[in-house]
Amino acid sequence: MTDSMSRLVACFRRLPGVGTKTAMRYAYSVIENDEEFANEFASAVTDAKKNIHFCAECGNYTEDEVCEFCRTRNKKVICVVAQPKDIAPFEKTGSFDGVYHVLHGTIDFRNGVGVDDIRIKELLARLVGVEEVIIATNPDVSGELTASYLAGQIKPLGIKVTRLAYGISVGSEIEYADEITLQRALSDRKEL
Amino acid sequence: MTDSMSRLVACFRRLPGVGTKTAMRYAYSVIENDEEFANEFASAVTDAKKNIHFCAECGNYTEDEVCEFCRTRNKKVICVVAQPKDIAPFEKTGSFDGVYHVLHGTIDFRNGVGVDDIRIKELLARLVGVEEVIIATNPDVSGELTASYLAGQIKPLGIKVTRLAYGISVGSEIEYADEITLQRALSDRKEL
Repeated sequence: MTDSMSRLVACFRRLPGVGTKTAMRYAYSVIENDEEFANEFASAVTDAKKNIHFCAECGNYTEDEVCEFCRTRNKKVICVVAQPKDIAPFEKTGSFDGVYHVLHGTIDFRNGVGVDDIRIKELLARLVGVEEVIIATNPDVSGELTASYLAGQIKPLGIKVTRLAYGISVGSEIEYADEITLQRALSDRKEL
Repeated sequence: MTDSMSRLVACFRRLPGVGTKTAMRYAYSVIENDEEFANEFASAVTDAKKNIHFCAECGNYTEDEVCEFCRTRNKKVICVVAQPKDIAPFEKTGSFDGVYHVLHGTIDFRNGVGVDDIRIKELLARLVGVEEVIIATNPDVSGELTASYLAGQIKPLGIKVTRLAYGISVGSEIEYADEITLQRALSDRKEL
C-alpha cells in the first residue's frame, strides 16, 4: 500500500465497526471517484467538525446557538435521550412535538460515569413550566438506573415523569428501533 | 439534521455498501472525535486522490511513476488481475514474487465492455522476455471469457499462460479469498 493509501485506510478504520477490508474498499472508492467528490468529502468532514456543536439548551448537535427543536417546538414536554443519535428515530415517528434533552451518556458506576458526569444539572435547570418529562434512555441496566434517578429528582417537583412503554424489546438500542415500534412505545408511555 | 451533517452523511452514503443509518453513525463519529482527526481525515482524502495514480507499467495504484512491484520484482512472471484491490490478497500469501498487470475490468459484452475497453493492449506490449502469464480474473463468466481471450492472444507468442487453480470457489470474489485458499490456488495453477 502507498503512504497516502495507508493514511486514508487508517482514518476509515477509526469509524465505528470498520475493519481493514472495509476501510480498503472505502479508500479505493475515494480514489476511483472523481476529484470533485474527494474535495467535497474533505470539506464536509472539516465543516461538520467546525460548524456543529451542542445546542445551548438541550445538548443536541446544531450549527446555531440553539437547535431547531428548541426554537420551534412545545417546551412543556421534554424527551430525555442519552445521545444525539437517539433523536432521529423519534422525529421519524412524527408523533412527538416536544423538545429534547440529551444527557450525553447514562449513569454507569462500573465505568465511572456518575450523576455529575452527564447533563442532569442542565436538565433540572430547564424544568420551570415543564409539564412532562419522557425518559427515553435505552432499556438496559444503565438506562434504567438513569431513568429511576431522574424520576426521583423530578417527581417531587410535581412534574409528570414517564418512561417509554416496553414496546421496545429489552436489550435493544433505541437508535435502531423501527418507526412503528417506537410510535407504539411513545403512545403507551407510562408514568414512573 | 443540520446542513453540515446532511452533507457529510451524503458523502458517506456514496461509499460502497453504506446506507443512511451507517452513514449517520460515521458522521456522528467524526463529530465526536477531536478536531485533529477531522483534519487528518480530510487531508488523507484529498492527498490520496491527488497523489495516487496508475503505475505507468502495470496499472496498479502508486504515488510514483512506477509502482513498487514493477521496480523491485521478477518481471518474467506477470499475474493479471481485474482490479488493483485484487493485488493485496496475493501479497498476503507471500508466495508470489512476480509483477502484476491490472486490466481495470474484464470483458463483458452485455455491459458494453469490449477488448479495447480494458488494459489488454498494455499487457500485450509488456510481454517481451516474459516466461509466464498467470491469469487471476474472478471465476465468473466475464473473468473466464477474459482469461480465454488472453490465452488465445498470448499462447501463440510461445509464452506459458496459466490460470489460478479452482481452489477458489466458483462464484466467489478474489478480493475476499483467504490466504490459504489463495496460496493453494497459486501453487496448483494450471496451463491454459
